[in-house]
Amino acid sequence: MQNHSDAYSYYKNRVDGILASTINKKEPRTLYDPLKYILEGGGKRIRPMMVIFSCEATGGNPEDALNASVALELLHNFTLVHDDIMDNADTRRGRKTIHKKWNDNVAILSGDHLIGLAYTFLIKTNTKRLNEIIDAFTEGIIEVCEGQSYDKEFEVRKDVTLEEYLMMISKKTSKMLQTSAVVGALIGDASSEQIVNIREYAANIGLAFQILDDLLDIMAIESQLGKKIGGDLVEGKKTYLLLKAREVINDKKDKEKIENIIINNGLEKATEDKIIEIKNIYEKYDVIKSANEEIEKYTMLADRHLNTLPDGEAKERLKWFSNMLMSRSF
Amino acid sequence: MQNHSDAYSYYKNRVDGILASTINKKEPRTLYDPLKYILEGGGKRIRPMMVIFSCEATGGNPEDALNASVALELLHNFTLVHDDIMDNADTRRGRKTIHKKWNDNVAILSGDHLIGLAYTFLIKTNTKRLNEIIDAFTEGIIEVCEGQSYDKEFEVRKDVTLEEYLMMISKKTSKMLQTSAVVGALIGDASSEQIVNIREYAANIGLAFQILDDLLDIMAIESQLGKKIGGDLVEGKKTYLLLKAREVINDKKDKEKIENIIINNGLEKATEDKIIEIKNIYEKYDVIKSANEEIEKYTMLADRHLNTLPDGEAKERLKWFSNMLMSRSF
Repeated sequence: MQNHSDAYSYYKNRVDGILASTINKKEPRTLYDPLKYILEGGGKRIRPMMVIFSCEATGGNPEDALNASVALELLHNFTLVHDDIMDNADTRRGRKTIHKKWNDNVAILSGDHLIGLAYTFLIKTNTKRLNEIIDAFTEGIIEVCEGQSYDKEFEVRKDVTLEEYLMMISKKTSKMLQTSAVVGALIGDASSEQIVNIREYAANIGLAFQILDDLLDIMAIESQLGKKIGGDLVEGKKTYLLLKAREVINDKKDKEKIENIIINNGLEKATEDKIIEIKNIYEKYDVIKSANEEIEKYTMLADRHLNTLPDGEAKERLKWFSNMLMSRSF
Repeated sequence: MQNHSDAYSYYKNRVDGILASTINKKEPRTLYDPLKYILEGGGKRIRPMMVIFSCEATGGNPEDALNASVALELLHNFTLVHDDIMDNADTRRGRKTIHKKWNDNVAILSGDHLIGLAYTFLIKTNTKRLNEIIDAFTEGIIEVCEGQSYDKEFEVRKDVTLEEYLMMISKKTSKMLQTSAVVGALIGDASSEQIVNIREYAANIGLAFQILDDLLDIMAIESQLGKKIGGDLVEGKKTYLLLKAREVINDKKDKEKIENIIINNGLEKATEDKIIEIKNIYEKYDVIKSANEEIEKYTMLADRHLNTLPDGEAKERLKWFSNMLMSRSF
């Protein structure tokens, strides 16, 4: 498939099709209704694409990566369902979260089930390297739990550093993309060197992706983002922007405004004006610029790691993929 | 090892030793502190023993089953941690539950992590049948989630039948023992016929085990049980005893007392006298006797399934094991 965008659409449809037909059971309804609901909720299917394109780029047949790609999407959905309970999130992809539509218990069990379901797909993979694949996949689960634990710890800590933030997102966001890439490369029977490089490619993409996420929270157009601008500020989330701002601002008054968000666990009386005030501070001290530079840096680092892969369409597709992910505006 | 009790102690110590040395990481503390805590909490290690003895009884080397046996204990602990959140339980094995000692979020993540950790041990198993083992293990997770979902559904339903109850416990309690036995037998490289039989052995043990659990809730000596007698009645849990009582009692007044527990989701004003009153009703209508007969029936059925296994010490050990489980008084 010459056109990268067509390839993306084609495999996304394939993955969506498998996901839609995954839940055949009806009973118990408090388990299978929410599972159907979450799997029909859409999404960009970034992790499945990472599996498929990584497999392809290391010389594998993308068809062989389909089951594993579904496994990664299921695992990603497990993290969403459980994280939404912990973050007390009301909506996800424009619809009620499972714990809001049903209750916490239902959401806990749906998430648990998704892990099991993910493994059932993973082990269907036709490969001689299944052990390594299961190993990488399992390591992914463990590290994502660590990442989410750090994230929750950071919520109540006032002294989180930018370095700690990067460590946390490398586990929480980046690891799942790394796992996707490594699983894909293993299906493609990649060499150790290729696996290291494709893992680093995905690791860097993950960091860029999360910083962009932080950036879009305040820079996106509200109607495109599908939620209120500045949500992270309202919640006092320790984003790249907030931590960087604290680091670079010298002016006492401006610094205090940033510190207050951290001290009060969120922007007090968070009107639109207040949010714009912080946004202006971010711009004034080049925090926005710095975030953009970081995104660019990690994207470039990512692409550089692709050099060990054989030249050709599939390698170009991975470059297209990372650039596509970074050019999103919502 | 000739003495079954010695064998049990020996392998239990081995499993405890592995579990105690499993958590080496310290950070993030909100993840690894609770994991250490739960794994040091003791327990009878029934599932690991089922793995080890089943492996031995099908001709395998019990040493080869150690990692998988730990995996089953970790998976069991995952269910305990998450179930305790859902049941809002305060204590477990005489200590505070994780969600009470820390909070719900910590308990959710600890449980999630335990699943991952379980797989890391499972895949260490030295066997040519790893795919089948992972398959059985994963099926176990999925069915346990179904069982717990049914259990929570039944809590708010007034019309649960005894048949539905048996279906639920076969998933919630029995399945994990089945999985343990099947995994052990696969490590022992058992024949298909042996696997079916050892699975049925464990399935029946599981049913007997749960009915005994229901029975002990009201028949045990409080100091031995480590908690108040009649807890299931107070919570209105749809146990074998309660559902059987509803089925067999004709007397209008006595039937009403049972129905009221179901209607009110628990025994109202549950004094000791009230609990003893219900216990007397159970005895009067042979509900206790019936439960004992069921336990005996399932234990006998279990043992009968062992007949396909090669005669010898290991087979006798499995019989000893099931009888030991059924002779507990707490």
